[in-house]
Amino acid sequence: MVFKKITLVGRSAESFDAAVDDAINRAEETLAGVHWVEVKELGVELASVETREYQAEVEVAFELEGKDGE
Amino acid sequence: MVFKKITLVGRSAESFDAAVDDAINRAEETLAGVHWVEVKELGVELASVETREYQAEVEVAFELEGKDGE
Amino acid sequence: MVFKKITLVGRSAESFDAAVDDAINRAEETLAGVHWVEVKELGVELASVETREYQAEVEVAFELEGKDGE
Amino acid sequence: MVFKKITLVGRSAESFDAAVDDAINRAEETLAGVHWVEVKELGVELASVETREYQAEVEVAFELEGKDGE
Amino acid sequence: MVFKKITLVGRSAESFDAAVDDAINRAEETLAGVHWVEVKELGVELASVETREYQAEVEVAFELEGKDGE
Amino acid sequence: MVFKKITLVGRSAESFDAAVDDAINRAEETLAGVHWVEVKELGVELASVETREYQAEVEVAFELEGKDGE
Amino acid sequence: MVFKKITLVGRSAESFDAAVDDAINRAEETLAGVHWVEVKELGVELASVETREYQAEVEVAFELEGKDGE
Amino acid sequence: MVFKKITLVGRSAESFDAAVDDAINRAEETLAGVHWVEVKELGVELASVETREYQAEVEVAFELEGKDGE
Amino acid sequence: MVFKKITLVGRSAESFDAAVDDAINRAEETLAGVHWVEVKELGVELASVETREYQAEVEVAFELEGKDGE
Amino acid sequence: MVFKKITLVGRSAESFDAAVDDAINRAEETLAGVHWVEVKELGVELASVETREYQAEVEVAFELEGKDGE
Amino acid sequence: MVFKKITLVGRSAESFDAAVDDAINRAEETLAGVHWVEVKELGVELASVETREYQAEVEVAFELEGKDGE
Amino acid sequence: MVFKKITLVGRSAESFDAAVDDAINRAEETLAGVHWVEVKELGVELASVETREYQAEVEVAFELEGKDGE
Repeated sequence: MVFKKITLVGRSAESFDAAVDDAINRAEETLAGVHWVEVKELGVELASVETREYQAEVEVAFELEGKDGE
Repeated sequence: MVFKKITLVGRSAESFDAAVDDAINRAEETLAGVHWVEVKELGVELASVETREYQAEVEVAFELEGKDGE
Repeated sequence: MVFKKITLVGRSAESFDAAVDDAINRAEETLAGVHWVEVKELGVELASVETREYQAEVEVAFELEGKDGE
Repeated sequence: MVFKKITLVGRSAESFDAAVDDAINRAEETLAGVHWVEVKELGVELASVETREYQAEVEVAFELEGKDGE
Repeated sequence: MVFKKITLVGRSAESFDAAVDDAINRAEETLAGVHWVEVKELGVELASVETREYQAEVEVAFELEGKDGE
Repeated sequence: MVFKKITLVGRSAESFDAAVDDAINRAEETLAGVHWVEVKELGVELASVETREYQAEVEVAFELEGKDGE
Repeated sequence: MVFKKITLVGRSAESFDAAVDDAINRAEETLAGVHWVEVKELGVELASVETREYQAEVEVAFELEGKDGE
Repeated sequence: MVFKKITLVGRSAESFDAAVDDAINRAEETLAGVHWVEVKELGVELASVETREYQAEVEVAFELEGKDGE
Repeated sequence: MVFKKITLVGRSAESFDAAVDDAINRAEETLAGVHWVEVKELGVELASVETREYQAEVEVAFELEGKDGE
Repeated sequence: MVFKKITLVGRSAESFDAAVDDAINRAEETLAGVHWVEVKELGVELASVETREYQAEVEVAFELEGKDGE
Repeated sequence: MVFKKITLVGRSAESFDAAVDDAINRAEETLAGVHWVEVKELGVELASVETREYQAEVEVAFELEGKDGE
Repeated sequence: MVFKKITLVGRSAESFDAAVDDAINRAEETLAGVHWVEVKELGVELASVETREYQAEVEVAFELEGKDGE
């Protein structure tokens, strides 16, 4: 019943809230037992995108069930 | 006329902005002379709540008037 | 083709997103080639303003073109 | 339902675990609704005590119920 | 015999030393058993005051005696 | 012969040492070539568990052998 | 189109540049869509190797395409 | 009404207070609307000067009025 | 005789040393009296460039002579 | 009556407490007037030892008596 | 011509400036070639002394001449 | 079998790699049992030298054998 943490960067054209949700949505699609999320960095990408892209780097903590989670 | 800072964690089912406001609202209910707030951490709780709970840890600075503020 | 970074504090009566946009808008009015923005601090000013003022300190990175950019 | 965090330094002549427990015990004597604790610093005092004193600085987070908790 | 730490911001029109002393004086007026102080931030306020105001954010550590110290 | 580092949170009802060992045990069940571990955070969970749960967030470094380790 | 970041430690008997390249080479062998790399730590191992081994801990950010990237 | 922050290092043969004032004096000679100052580093130079030179690295925040402030 | 510090990001297809030199070269083209440079971040850009681009974020400290340096 | 601080890494096959004690024991064998110890890092070495080796990096502060302590 | 840095804690009943000078004085009594000093922490001791004792933890950098400086 | 860590600043007119090697070379001339090195800061000195001087502040960890190593 150990937790594992992974680092994702969510992206949104709308807001930082949506960027965080983007990362959580992606985590919950592939992982069971997501417990909490910590926001590590917020930023905006301007050069390589058409409109402002809000980005949120987050750590996602989930409970490891079996032995194939790493 | 010294300032004191306390640490609160505001919570909201809607957004980080609302979580910060939640903490400020609570502070202003019980404290006079709140001057400024600094956001220290943003996170999302998923395991122990029904929907995503946005959390904001903030430091609230207020002016100490009398000698009973600690 | 070196990047330069400057530090701005955007302000909004509405939200942190709007405070970040405020700083980016100001940067893009006077600077060409803004590439990305990093959020360094979020805070709320209460004492010297009528309503809550959301503030976002950001670093703005832009590409230096000529030799008069410093 | 805002959380508040306070900072305590627990002390023990035995171990760091006991120093952390010392701080938690003190918090639970006077506060209801303690949710979690974060260890911020570990140290050992030697000069002003007879034996080695293990110290643990911790942040204690508890849920504010009424309006008299600050 | 647990220590508790609180955060104060002392202020002075003279110097940083005086700003730190300002915070310690305030702490000693209302608290017994102050043991040590750590300086966390130094700054100068210019906009909302007549002359330069030196500010010192400090953590004040004091020994908790009874159960009514929080 | 590159190292990879992953982040785990070990948990124990007994002590921080046991929480760290819990994370190392889990890592060694599924990974070969674990070289070293760095402790990043120590904490205690109280609200969602029956007794105090000691938690240790650690980074585990192991040597990547083949090309399927990511 | 979320990014994921993993932490690798590249190693080289020649230089820090080569240690960083070592980590990037390994990442690109097994991952598509590597976007950027951040250097977190530089060090030199002397005790367990014949000659000085330059080491670079880096975070590698890559774009997650499907749902099997974690 | 965005703030901009610049980084200066004030110097004095007398004291750290005077070194901070030195940086503020310089900022106020060339900038209108200086609002606050944050001390980032304190140091003393000994090798390249005749007597001890106290140095203070500060961030100076001022309000941008027009579009030529960068 | 105050110092000012600005933040540049030098870039090179060859090495981190060359990226740092790139930033220093650019600074010395437009600024007199550059005294020292501090490396803040090292990274590698891969997505938006043809080959690996080594990047070095540096702070450049130079002595302010007149009143038009900001 | 200046304090000096040195950095030691204590090691133990048993526990982190024992690793810290190991460093303090070593310091007290060769130094008089040890006043306090601060824990800076905790880790576990696995690759180069037979069993898990708990390591604690600590700063040891002691009072300098004469002029031969550096 | 390598520099070495050591950590001292200077103490004064008067001011932080005097505490820093106290550490520098001690360093210069026993070391040749002191080049610069960086202030790491400022604090005030109250419990174990008669009056307030201002303390400054500093890093002192000096040039190593021969081979007996460690 | 405690480790001790000391802080050195290596210097080179060529590169950061050479500056790190400079510090390691100096350490190995006077110390037996050097185990590893951690890079803490990289910088370039320009004002007091003829050409650019690359500097690397490193922590050197070595095993203490007898009781005369401090």
